[in-house]
Amino acid sequence: MNKLAYIDDVQTRINDYLGKKLESLAINDEKLLDAMRYGLLIGGKRMRPYLAYITGATLDAEQGDIDGVAAAIECIHAYSLLHDDLPAMDDDDLRRGQPTCHKAFDEATAILAGDSLQTLAFDIIANHDFSKAVDAKRINLLRYLVNAAGYQGMCGGQALDLAATGQAITLAELENLHSLKTGALLEASVKMAAECSNQATTFDKEQLALYAKLMGLAYQVRDDIIDITSTEEELGKPAGSDLAANKSTYPALLGLQGAQEKAENLYQQALQALATLPYNTQSLSDFATFIVSRKN
Amino acid sequence: MNKLAYIDDVQTRINDYLGKKLESLAINDEKLLDAMRYGLLIGGKRMRPYLAYITGATLDAEQGDIDGVAAAIECIHAYSLLHDDLPAMDDDDLRRGQPTCHKAFDEATAILAGDSLQTLAFDIIANHDFSKAVDAKRINLLRYLVNAAGYQGMCGGQALDLAATGQAITLAELENLHSLKTGALLEASVKMAAECSNQATTFDKEQLALYAKLMGLAYQVRDDIIDITSTEEELGKPAGSDLAANKSTYPALLGLQGAQEKAENLYQQALQALATLPYNTQSLSDFATFIVSRKN
Repeated sequence: MNKLAYIDDVQTRINDYLGKKLESLAINDEKLLDAMRYGLLIGGKRMRPYLAYITGATLDAEQGDIDGVAAAIECIHAYSLLHDDLPAMDDDDLRRGQPTCHKAFDEATAILAGDSLQTLAFDIIANHDFSKAVDAKRINLLRYLVNAAGYQGMCGGQALDLAATGQAITLAELENLHSLKTGALLEASVKMAAECSNQATTFDKEQLALYAKLMGLAYQVRDDIIDITSTEEELGKPAGSDLAANKSTYPALLGLQGAQEKAENLYQQALQALATLPYNTQSLSDFATFIVSRKN
Repeated sequence: MNKLAYIDDVQTRINDYLGKKLESLAINDEKLLDAMRYGLLIGGKRMRPYLAYITGATLDAEQGDIDGVAAAIECIHAYSLLHDDLPAMDDDDLRRGQPTCHKAFDEATAILAGDSLQTLAFDIIANHDFSKAVDAKRINLLRYLVNAAGYQGMCGGQALDLAATGQAITLAELENLHSLKTGALLEASVKMAAECSNQATTFDKEQLALYAKLMGLAYQVRDDIIDITSTEEELGKPAGSDLAANKSTYPALLGLQGAQEKAENLYQQALQALATLPYNTQSLSDFATFIVSRKN
């Protein structure tokens, strides 16, 4: 599978939503707004929004509700990239084949743009025009996002990742790190989209969360594999950067073949979780297939 | 006026709340949690919580509700200090007489601790044990906090402040900058505390917001005056740092006497706003008096 069905539609839809949201902001510092736009709208595969939209479609949620969920999650993801790329963190000059935000602007602006994008995520949860049924569940959406974004989730994972650089860590520690750093936001994409559905039972939500957790790990295992098997042109950033940065990876712990088996194993478990659900989960299983076979 | 009534009680109460909130977090990266604790609990005058508590008391709001409001606002304030002190921003080594977070830890940890404290603010809005009446208004509190924290508020002001460094700006531009950078969060302290009251009318809330806006500006004018008239010992950081950083200040634009008159004028306007209210506003006017006469 080389391309996800409707991915172009999702990208157009979410970029349109985010672009309009940025345009709606009062004019304060234009450079800061430009940097936010740069961080949010230049490139980006929109995997998290895609996962939210297909989960929503699977559970018959309203697409207008998923817009808010997908946009908020993408703001958190975009802010994390601006900060992770900073010289004090991963010190990356390129992202999606373009200069990173602190290179295109400056460090102070990249820090502030990230800070502002985090707030914007919560702004969207607070102010998106949700349907009446989901409006009543706004606080639930907020709780999911909070758990995925902060110390309990993504930031905690990034801190563990920084601490693990140059250290020998176990497979369990690596999994915990990625469950937080990458998995939490992917899980939130599914959980928040499911929250927008009136059909999903507690059991359904648990199985979907399990699917998302497994796919989050598979996504990271595949990422580690790609980093050592792809070219800079395919990646849009230097290949082998994990190795250069002395980062713990699945191939480093398991070998390349072991890592590939790990990804396959996670993939099969994710499909099993989907198989328990009384819905047509074809798009979710296609997404899983895409994740474990993607080249960049 | 040298000391605010009950300020010690407020500091003890809010520090206790914040300390317990941090303790309740799952154990992920302990260094990150230590840095969050450092940024949140080492020193801090707690002016914003104080303003929230006295506004709440004036309007007969429940103190347990104000705990959540005050803690969330203080998390936003603390995160902004961690990021503003970074080398790429104001490059400060000392804060409240102690090493800044990136000096006590490292830059990456200070960035992540700031990011996590921002999320923690929204966590508190999402999960604080509000009374039933305020629980129903959680989204209103979220909206106030979002407006005060991000591009529309504090971050926008910090960006304007960075852009203004070394530039000639007008008094109107300086006021706009500070209304966003410092004023927005002080205003939110009052607005969110008023939202916790069942008594306050729309008119009352408008007058209180005006009071807060004026005091926010007075606070900053006084800050600029203190920076050139106090000693390093009084400030807990080097005196004259605005001048050294080539920052636009009220004394620079108006002269020292002009700045003192400006602070007095804002103070009188704030008292006039309070005089329109049908409550005992003594603690709010005392706070105003304290702000324009404080030495550090």
